[in-house]
Amino acid sequence: MAISKTLSELASHVGGKVIGDGGVRIHKIAPIDEAGPGELTFLAHPRYRRHLGRCRASGVIVGPGVVGGKDIPPSLNYLEAADPYVAFARCLQLFCPAPQFELGVSPRSHVDSSARIGEGVTIFPHAYIGARATVGKGSVIFPGVYVGAQAQIGADCILHANVVVREGCQLGDRVILHPGVVIGSDGFGYAGAGEERVKIPQIGIVVIEDDVEIGANTTVDRATLGRTLVARGAKIDNLVQIAHNVTIGEHSVVAAQAGIAGSTRIGRNVILAGQSGVVNHVTVGDGAIIGPQSGVARPVPAGAVLSSGIEASPHQQWLKVMALLPELPKLWSAVRVLERRVARLLKPAEKEIDGDVGR
Amino acid sequence: MAISKTLSELASHVGGKVIGDGGVRIHKIAPIDEAGPGELTFLAHPRYRRHLGRCRASGVIVGPGVVGGKDIPPSLNYLEAADPYVAFARCLQLFCPAPQFELGVSPRSHVDSSARIGEGVTIFPHAYIGARATVGKGSVIFPGVYVGAQAQIGADCILHANVVVREGCQLGDRVILHPGVVIGSDGFGYAGAGEERVKIPQIGIVVIEDDVEIGANTTVDRATLGRTLVARGAKIDNLVQIAHNVTIGEHSVVAAQAGIAGSTRIGRNVILAGQSGVVNHVTVGDGAIIGPQSGVARPVPAGAVLSSGIEASPHQQWLKVMALLPELPKLWSAVRVLERRVARLLKPAEKEIDGDVGR
Amino acid sequence: MAISKTLSELASHVGGKVIGDGGVRIHKIAPIDEAGPGELTFLAHPRYRRHLGRCRASGVIVGPGVVGGKDIPPSLNYLEAADPYVAFARCLQLFCPAPQFELGVSPRSHVDSSARIGEGVTIFPHAYIGARATVGKGSVIFPGVYVGAQAQIGADCILHANVVVREGCQLGDRVILHPGVVIGSDGFGYAGAGEERVKIPQIGIVVIEDDVEIGANTTVDRATLGRTLVARGAKIDNLVQIAHNVTIGEHSVVAAQAGIAGSTRIGRNVILAGQSGVVNHVTVGDGAIIGPQSGVARPVPAGAVLSSGIEASPHQQWLKVMALLPELPKLWSAVRVLERRVARLLKPAEKEIDGDVGR
Repeated sequence: MAISKTLSELASHVGGKVIGDGGVRIHKIAPIDEAGPGELTFLAHPRYRRHLGRCRASGVIVGPGVVGGKDIPPSLNYLEAADPYVAFARCLQLFCPAPQFELGVSPRSHVDSSARIGEGVTIFPHAYIGARATVGKGSVIFPGVYVGAQAQIGADCILHANVVVREGCQLGDRVILHPGVVIGSDGFGYAGAGEERVKIPQIGIVVIEDDVEIGANTTVDRATLGRTLVARGAKIDNLVQIAHNVTIGEHSVVAAQAGIAGSTRIGRNVILAGQSGVVNHVTVGDGAIIGPQSGVARPVPAGAVLSSGIEASPHQQWLKVMALLPELPKLWSAVRVLERRVARLLKPAEKEIDGDVGR
Repeated sequence: MAISKTLSELASHVGGKVIGDGGVRIHKIAPIDEAGPGELTFLAHPRYRRHLGRCRASGVIVGPGVVGGKDIPPSLNYLEAADPYVAFARCLQLFCPAPQFELGVSPRSHVDSSARIGEGVTIFPHAYIGARATVGKGSVIFPGVYVGAQAQIGADCILHANVVVREGCQLGDRVILHPGVVIGSDGFGYAGAGEERVKIPQIGIVVIEDDVEIGANTTVDRATLGRTLVARGAKIDNLVQIAHNVTIGEHSVVAAQAGIAGSTRIGRNVILAGQSGVVNHVTVGDGAIIGPQSGVARPVPAGAVLSSGIEASPHQQWLKVMALLPELPKLWSAVRVLERRVARLLKPAEKEIDGDVGR
Repeated sequence: MAISKTLSELASHVGGKVIGDGGVRIHKIAPIDEAGPGELTFLAHPRYRRHLGRCRASGVIVGPGVVGGKDIPPSLNYLEAADPYVAFARCLQLFCPAPQFELGVSPRSHVDSSARIGEGVTIFPHAYIGARATVGKGSVIFPGVYVGAQAQIGADCILHANVVVREGCQLGDRVILHPGVVIGSDGFGYAGAGEERVKIPQIGIVVIEDDVEIGANTTVDRATLGRTLVARGAKIDNLVQIAHNVTIGEHSVVAAQAGIAGSTRIGRNVILAGQSGVVNHVTVGDGAIIGPQSGVARPVPAGAVLSSGIEASPHQQWLKVMALLPELPKLWSAVRVLERRVARLLKPAEKEIDGDVGR
């Protein structure tokens, strides 16, 4: 708790340099408008420069070339870093280390006698570990967590309260699942229709690789056959839907309430913004970015930046737009007719063409 | 259970007046098409007037000026109230009081010895109350609830089954959290990109003020630094996402599946309709209304009414509209060209202007 | 586990016929690109035909008329079925029967003494069955499940981990609720506004009929009065919102993250695609299909196929479209003006009409 570092020590921790007094001691991180003596803050966005005039922090993390600029008081001490946001994150990790639990296995949890539990594992009361499941060393299983039969949890994972990992699913190391996450629910698969609809057993699994973090109440369905995969380093926000047989590539980011339909492959370093959706059976190429509330209906090339979200406008005006939208084809036709007529007027010698000269 | 009131007593309870026989006894509330003798119903919408002809209820709650109108049988007894829906709600509260639990603390729950539990608190089996947490008097903690270390639950709160309130988060009085709600999951914050992505520790909290109600499986992330705030009287529906450092103002209403991105401030008495989304770092002014499925991408002035949701139309027609939408800029250009040509035709003396004469 | 059938036996099980060697023994189902000897696979989509050339499976399920076609090696054994996907599902059910649990009632669960538990019921540790609740024969209640007072669970139901069924709600037989499903949370109902907002007690229930399956973390609110209904055979995906007093008709399908607002009636055999939304108080007719991300704002006739989802396009191009969308009414006006002017030019004798000759 009582961690204290000089600004110079922090600079060397994050690979940055001090501009000002490197000897000041820092014991806490605080927002720019709250930070006082002994505290470190950061300038995340130019618009916050205006706060610096009255800032009393002992240090301010800034990006390259910021010091000396407008609204940057020379009286403050600065920690200049290539990526100030990364430097901030690293300092925050230093001052606020993750809580350590060494409670062992609570007698009020249920751990099947055939489960294998690693060293230094914490299992809270009311957690359930099924038959032949494994929990790797150092992992923390919070209350109400369910780990199904033969599921595998890697080392140093954190499964927050009421997480469910169904039977046979596999987590790598350092995976963080926030409360209410469901891993391995049945994919939404039926054959036939109506009275004749038949459930397709979902006998595949989910594989979550190392360093994945998944937000609260997000759902990841198990594969029909094979596996649903969330690859190494991917970060998934809250209330996201990942359907059966989907692959999320390494280091991809999926924001809250996005949904990915069955068998779709999301590449590496892809960003899906909030409330976006991707249809089933397509591939989204590496590095693609999909905007908020946007719908992806066909394969996306690598590096593409796509959107279809519409910004809200005044309601009465929008009602008029909405009424006209379905008329768009008629509008095009009207413009085409006009083009033909105007062309005829401009070149009176030219014979009228009755047919559609259209697009 | 066996509550019985005369229509006059109910009228005075809700501040309304009786038109008809105030002495009839009421013991139940029922929908207009089901209510019979001894039962009270209400006319919520003019379109339900047609049910009144064969209504056998002993009383009907109506708004001012309704009695005497078309389709309003004079033979029925009416309770006229300024806001019939509020009157209905108050009568329903009277006839159907919230269940009382006085079970005390179940020995099958886990309550840390350092937690402070108020008088008259009910803690069901399999609930977990962490170290130094507090639960105010009269609160009810259902099975499977997790209250983390140092979390504070006010008085007369109801935490339904499997709710999670993570460490340090604070609830006011009379807060209702429906099943599966997650309060205080980590905000979705990373610095850097790809392999270099660094988790920003989320060390802030969530504060939920008095009289807030939050729907099933909704998620409210803790702040990076500081707090995420849901202010007094706000009502949040199911499956809503509230990101880190968001503020929801007093008495605002957020409908199901809406999402609010990080650091955004929602004012007082704002209404966000279902499946709407608000980007990060903006302010939505007091009293603003955002329509269903609408996307807010910039600050919203107080009182604004905004939409961008599109009503579904026949699929084949919509496919044509969708194909033309991306061509909208071309259509504008075509119209501009036509305007210039027609202008030239109308004023042949005027010289042609080749450049864009713009909108 | 060690189930083994000949291809002929499987053909007669699914009502299909063998083309090739019906005597080969099958003991497993596998994807087309993985299946080897002793394994059965299926051709779900023509695009997978290319895999057949190097397929080593002992049998391939195909639709009528496929064998003999292009890319269909005559050397393989085929099981031809009217609906190959249904045949695949039935074979999968045969080879992968649902796990059987006969653990009885765990002493670490909490079952109220007044609850009625049928024969062959399994109740896992940390499950909670409230007063006067019933659980029908053969049902399986996983850890962390909450069944409220007087709730009724039918026969052969599966309530996965951390499911919540609140008081008084009713499930038919063979209902499957995936982890985190919430049945019977309060509907989102308030009367009045701002400081005066009054909670309307939600005293109705939820009824889930036979053979319904509901996906992970989906929420179904109880009715204000009466009941919210999910009728026989309906299939609901993950993270769906079903509001109070909604009816979902028999065999309807609701895909992930769709939302249905209060009192709306969804007919039979309706399909709501992912992230679609339906406003309150409307009826969606039998057999209607609503596209992904589409918004339904008024009643939908039976059999209608509606959409309003927009496919994502390149971001820079989309920004231009978005900027022009609100200008659509102006564009129409401009075209109308042009039409009048061109008409005047074409017929110079005709008098100019100054007013809007409009649409």
